[in-house]
Amino acid sequence: MDIYIKEQKGYASQIGHLVSQINYARKTTLDSIEGCTQEELDGLLSSDGNTIGALLLHMAAVEKGFQIEFFDGRNPNEVEMEEWGAAYGLGARGRKEIVGHPLSFYIERLHRVRQKTLTVLADKPDEWLYEECRWDGYPSNHYFIWFHVMEDEINHRGQIRLIRKALQQERKREA
Amino acid sequence: MDIYIKEQKGYASQIGHLVSQINYARKTTLDSIEGCTQEELDGLLSSDGNTIGALLLHMAAVEKGFQIEFFDGRNPNEVEMEEWGAAYGLGARGRKEIVGHPLSFYIERLHRVRQKTLTVLADKPDEWLYEECRWDGYPSNHYFIWFHVMEDEINHRGQIRLIRKALQQERKREA
Repeated sequence: MDIYIKEQKGYASQIGHLVSQINYARKTTLDSIEGCTQEELDGLLSSDGNTIGALLLHMAAVEKGFQIEFFDGRNPNEVEMEEWGAAYGLGARGRKEIVGHPLSFYIERLHRVRQKTLTVLADKPDEWLYEECRWDGYPSNHYFIWFHVMEDEINHRGQIRLIRKALQQERKREA
Repeated sequence: MDIYIKEQKGYASQIGHLVSQINYARKTTLDSIEGCTQEELDGLLSSDGNTIGALLLHMAAVEKGFQIEFFDGRNPNEVEMEEWGAAYGLGARGRKEIVGHPLSFYIERLHRVRQKTLTVLADKPDEWLYEECRWDGYPSNHYFIWFHVMEDEINHRGQIRLIRKALQQERKREA
């Protein structure tokens, strides 16, 4: 395994740096869920928490939302709101609607959304990263937006590690 | 609030990009612990988990460890092992030794260690980021090392958010 932050083949120089970061983050996400059981994907540590499955789908939903906003320059339509709304918002709706999917479902969603991001980034020049945009109402740039997609993923990967370990220990205590 | 990933005054171009990322990550860490009570800093969700206090000191310990390894080019000495060992390793020793500190203690440690990182980074040329080094035995570069410091912080910030919310909800249920 080589671990570098640097230019990446097929991308503009600065975009390659970003891609090497998001690729590394994704690898650690996939490592964190390797062999996850159905019980682990659907298990709650507390009645108002989020499941690992919901957090995984949330990662894909956040990325999908930013694609719609910053690649397509529009708001999500009704079909997209229906498909991704529960995962985007998490909480009660996520707990109710995101349940029973096998691990492969989440991995496929993450992969499919990410492929789109990488395809679009491959066509962008570095200047695009520095273009001004609004994030959550604040003045920002495209570089921050895609940094933030990764940053949100890492945040939730940390939670997934904690939840999975705690669920496994609960199970051991019950055995 | 302006949120950009871009060059930063006082740093070489590429190092500035990294600094804007680590500064943003740190801001979100400080936001996540604003007003944290002693009970929240020392509370455990499960007997084998980590406290918010231990996770905060861990962030500083990881950064301190990388400073020693990659800025100073040496191994930690006995005094440093004694001061930072519990926070670096977390687990049982962390639960035993890291307890009872006020929030200001953790913030001061985080700040002190970070100031050293920023001071050293301000003197480095961009080429230094691409110098080869070993990370956990793997071929890597300095860029990855300091990206990883941030990535580990974000991972634990995600856990802190989860732990704090769960502790607050436990307390509400008990009230």
